[in-house]
Amino acid sequence: MAPKIQIALDTLDGQHALDLARLVAPYVDILEAGTPLLKSVGIDIVRKLKAAHPDKLVLADLKSSDVGAYEAKMAFEAGADITTTLGVTTLATIEEVQREADRWNRRCEVDMTGVADPVARAREVKSVGVSLVLYHRSIDEELTKGASWNDRACQIVNDLTALGIDVSVAGGVDVEKLPLLCSMSLYGIVVGRGITAQADPAAAALAIARSVKELWLA
Amino acid sequence: MAPKIQIALDTLDGQHALDLARLVAPYVDILEAGTPLLKSVGIDIVRKLKAAHPDKLVLADLKSSDVGAYEAKMAFEAGADITTTLGVTTLATIEEVQREADRWNRRCEVDMTGVADPVARAREVKSVGVSLVLYHRSIDEELTKGASWNDRACQIVNDLTALGIDVSVAGGVDVEKLPLLCSMSLYGIVVGRGITAQADPAAAALAIARSVKELWLA
Repeated sequence: MAPKIQIALDTLDGQHALDLARLVAPYVDILEAGTPLLKSVGIDIVRKLKAAHPDKLVLADLKSSDVGAYEAKMAFEAGADITTTLGVTTLATIEEVQREADRWNRRCEVDMTGVADPVARAREVKSVGVSLVLYHRSIDEELTKGASWNDRACQIVNDLTALGIDVSVAGGVDVEKLPLLCSMSLYGIVVGRGITAQADPAAAALAIARSVKELWLA
Repeated sequence: MAPKIQIALDTLDGQHALDLARLVAPYVDILEAGTPLLKSVGIDIVRKLKAAHPDKLVLADLKSSDVGAYEAKMAFEAGADITTTLGVTTLATIEEVQREADRWNRRCEVDMTGVADPVARAREVKSVGVSLVLYHRSIDEELTKGASWNDRACQIVNDLTALGIDVSVAGGVDVEKLPLLCSMSLYGIVVGRGITAQADPAAAALAIARSVKELWLA
């Protein structure tokens, strides 16, 4: 299976997010209402994305760090298929989000940004029912420390998938970096600026969709 | 100095938040746009709270876990006096939020929820310029594990203030729990349901304001 392509809509402008979604929807599988976008314009953007693209999965990147069920319920009521919480927060919160997802028959994704030992933490979150994690290199760390995709990152992702859970990856992915990822069995690949910051976002999304098909289905 | 009283507006309904703020503003110092509220209705609620209450401090509880400067700038542009980030996230993000706060001459608060060793982490965040931390018992942990204010929590808060930083406390505070806190030198006391879930929120806020004055200024 080729990984799903997830477009991270991280603009602060709701109309811009909807315009971007319309342009790239033909080439992606998951529309992500990014954390800054949600905080900027509120959960209604999830409702609008789902209404405009009922055939796509919509992910609400709430990154809940407390009152997990309360926030997850808000996302699912708005039509989200997936909502997120943080690997660095308490297991109590992660379990609350997962339980709420179970109630709605939808999914909870645990974002591993900042987790010192992602594989050990993934084992813990799996024990409370989580079946999807995001291996996310922090953008702030990338900018300040120059962290990038390397053998160690790929080893961690392989160890995560070996636990029998779905794994998505995010952080600085563009069409040039896809070959670095193609040895891995991935649920999803999150692309943000690799599409949204390009002169022609639709062309960038198409290039990524073609490259993913070539690399994974070859 | 008596601690500032911070009302956490954690409803998902923007109008309800504004109504609550109007009722309790005479008795509190800081109006907090809670994390679920921000995610529900967006950052414009900060603008509305500040416009209605220019004489109060407004805190945007963004709990930023990545792209810290991007989110902090959004909060300060909307009129927030304080924005928050998470002690459990990367130091790179915390530093970004603090730098953005410095640019605006406003404040960054680091929420210590889920941090294993809050005193050690506070030393680290102080080294990147942070001067305000929140010792926050997780609500989800409270509900599932029955964690509550005890001698150990008070010792941690005293160790935090001994570092020479401002410390606010949050998590299940109501008028009955104030005497447990009064031995401590606090920047702020965050009250949510202890006011907002009461039959008469204004009366509850007044009772807390009176009690704080009696206990700390006695």
